[in-house]
Amino acid sequence: MLEFTKEEFLSRLVKIKERMREKNIDVLLVTDPANMNYITGYNAWSFYVHQMVAVLLDEEEPVWIGRFMDAIACRKTAWINHENIIGYSDLFVQSTEVHPMDFVADTLETRGQGVKTIAVEMDNYYFTAKAMESLRKGLPNAKFVDAQGLVNWVRIIKSDTEIEHMKRAGKIMEKGMMDAINYLDVGVRKCDMAAEIYRTFTSGTKEFGGDYASIVPLMPTGIDAGACHLTWTDEKYEDGDIVIFELAGAYKRYHSPMSRTISLGKPTQKLEDTAKITIEGLNMALDFIKPGVTAEEVEAVWSNNLKRYGLEKESRIGYSTGLNYPPDWGEHTISLRPGDKTVLQKNMTLHVIPGMYYEDFGVEISEAILITETGCEPLANVERKLFIK
Amino acid sequence: MLEFTKEEFLSRLVKIKERMREKNIDVLLVTDPANMNYITGYNAWSFYVHQMVAVLLDEEEPVWIGRFMDAIACRKTAWINHENIIGYSDLFVQSTEVHPMDFVADTLETRGQGVKTIAVEMDNYYFTAKAMESLRKGLPNAKFVDAQGLVNWVRIIKSDTEIEHMKRAGKIMEKGMMDAINYLDVGVRKCDMAAEIYRTFTSGTKEFGGDYASIVPLMPTGIDAGACHLTWTDEKYEDGDIVIFELAGAYKRYHSPMSRTISLGKPTQKLEDTAKITIEGLNMALDFIKPGVTAEEVEAVWSNNLKRYGLEKESRIGYSTGLNYPPDWGEHTISLRPGDKTVLQKNMTLHVIPGMYYEDFGVEISEAILITETGCEPLANVERKLFIK
Repeated sequence: MLEFTKEEFLSRLVKIKERMREKNIDVLLVTDPANMNYITGYNAWSFYVHQMVAVLLDEEEPVWIGRFMDAIACRKTAWINHENIIGYSDLFVQSTEVHPMDFVADTLETRGQGVKTIAVEMDNYYFTAKAMESLRKGLPNAKFVDAQGLVNWVRIIKSDTEIEHMKRAGKIMEKGMMDAINYLDVGVRKCDMAAEIYRTFTSGTKEFGGDYASIVPLMPTGIDAGACHLTWTDEKYEDGDIVIFELAGAYKRYHSPMSRTISLGKPTQKLEDTAKITIEGLNMALDFIKPGVTAEEVEAVWSNNLKRYGLEKESRIGYSTGLNYPPDWGEHTISLRPGDKTVLQKNMTLHVIPGMYYEDFGVEISEAILITETGCEPLANVERKLFIK
Repeated sequence: MLEFTKEEFLSRLVKIKERMREKNIDVLLVTDPANMNYITGYNAWSFYVHQMVAVLLDEEEPVWIGRFMDAIACRKTAWINHENIIGYSDLFVQSTEVHPMDFVADTLETRGQGVKTIAVEMDNYYFTAKAMESLRKGLPNAKFVDAQGLVNWVRIIKSDTEIEHMKRAGKIMEKGMMDAINYLDVGVRKCDMAAEIYRTFTSGTKEFGGDYASIVPLMPTGIDAGACHLTWTDEKYEDGDIVIFELAGAYKRYHSPMSRTISLGKPTQKLEDTAKITIEGLNMALDFIKPGVTAEEVEAVWSNNLKRYGLEKESRIGYSTGLNYPPDWGEHTISLRPGDKTVLQKNMTLHVIPGMYYEDFGVEISEAILITETGCEPLANVERKLFIK
């Protein structure tokens, strides 16, 4: 069930170990499910219990530690030797008496790692405050350091196979977004709209199927269209509604996100104007993106254009995307905003989303892009306009 | 957009404040999205950034603190006064320099809470090690204590309206599971099967629409059927496959989960036998459940029956379910396993799932149940058998 060659996994591991050496890290405990997948190929919906991949400088292969029942899925999806797949008893699951990190601490102690410098992903969803406390208690002689983002920053440049995955996700997006816009109509229940989106994105194309996106369909509507992270209800669409779709095509955990805004009926002048300015600024930002420019310079192109209209936007206009698991398809590295001086490079992939959010309406028109030798190209081709139905 | 009366929200708050007083907690920082929803009604896919609801003993209303752009959704979905909805700047999002909990610490300090006893949900997915570290740094004079599960345990007894929500989720399950079993066939791509499941569960019934489940369709198959948390690929079902569906109907964030096992073609003797023993044990456990018995006694009924066949099961056979957000529809309170002495009570809701997981096959047949005055009843009625197609 490997999605990449063993050589690709090993080359990732080489890069990660290089960074560990640079930072004097002996042991890296990877709890971000996307990073666990990136290193080993492990892929299952098991991140609701504590689990990790430990990369040890003095061991060749990484070690998977997780729930006993999930070790089966690890043996089926990861490339690592089965003796490096270690399951803990179910009694550790959501217990008030023992914690899975007690088991991890014992395991590391047994492997002679109890006095080493151990790095953890301090701000990862699946590394809780309690996980840290339990590890510190179980390994009192270890030195703990923060390696938040270490693997994420290795992931920032995509390989050819990763790009192929994302282009397939883009194909799913092209089909799915147009299907969604075609299905949308006055009188359709929002839950039925969401159902249609799920159907088409999960089914994918005839050549390849879709995966679940790390975020459910976001589809704020009408006077709630500016509340960008709302999902759906069973109410019906009404004439005059503004409808926002923020969706992602997904292929083997790789994402190609996109948002579009649709007006059911004649758009208001305010909506038309905001959409026009959004598209204009998005186009300017995309025209500007190429290897060598910085993340904050991209944002400045956008915000300087907004200023011409006397407008401003509070939030970042994009981020790195690719491989991920819920709750986010962003990679938590690059943010297109003031202060982010990351130099953009070839084969980075970004979701450029200059959403305009207001109390009573909103506009989202975005593109997922691949940075090329000389500029950038969208992962999916859907007309970049305010759709009117 | 409130799903419950304001009175119900206020009565929840009274119970939570009672427990805070019992434990000498002045301030409770609630970061579990289900608990945030339970207290305020807040409902959006925004838990991929740091956010919380703070319950302060010396303030009447809870305070929502989250990302600036999500404050809009909070004003639309929560019952609390808008002055108690506080947004932080986007510059705090996934930054390496500042952390949203720095903002939270400042906010609490300003409200005079910096020297109080502050409780946090130490093992909640969305309360990271870094969140704890930032809070400690920002509030050096506060005393921090662990309140993991405090709100979850208040949630354990469902109100009439909550039960109605779960019964609706059960109706969606009844329809969805039978649609799924009918659609399943040799030659169908697994991604198309998942697409159909998403469509039917999200669409719901004519009377009410479905919500997203907190776990995606789990559908391990064939020799991977024992790897219970696998999702799907774009391969086709084959004659002789064992197919497991672990799914949930969802209605306004409330779940009714269920698993069923289907044999495509004539089942092997081993499959038939394991299914028979699973159903027998499940029935015995369900017959036994009533107010007054303990969680571990339920498990003992199951495991004593297994022993008669010389079998054992490594993992718990159930847990409390209801309101939740990804990555889990379990409530992280009751586990049906040895050592859990929780006394079952009327209007608790459990997912009883005695899955049998092996390296090369598996069986899952489960029921979500409501505990009644005298026993229990399933939330959804689907024939409790090994389906053969």
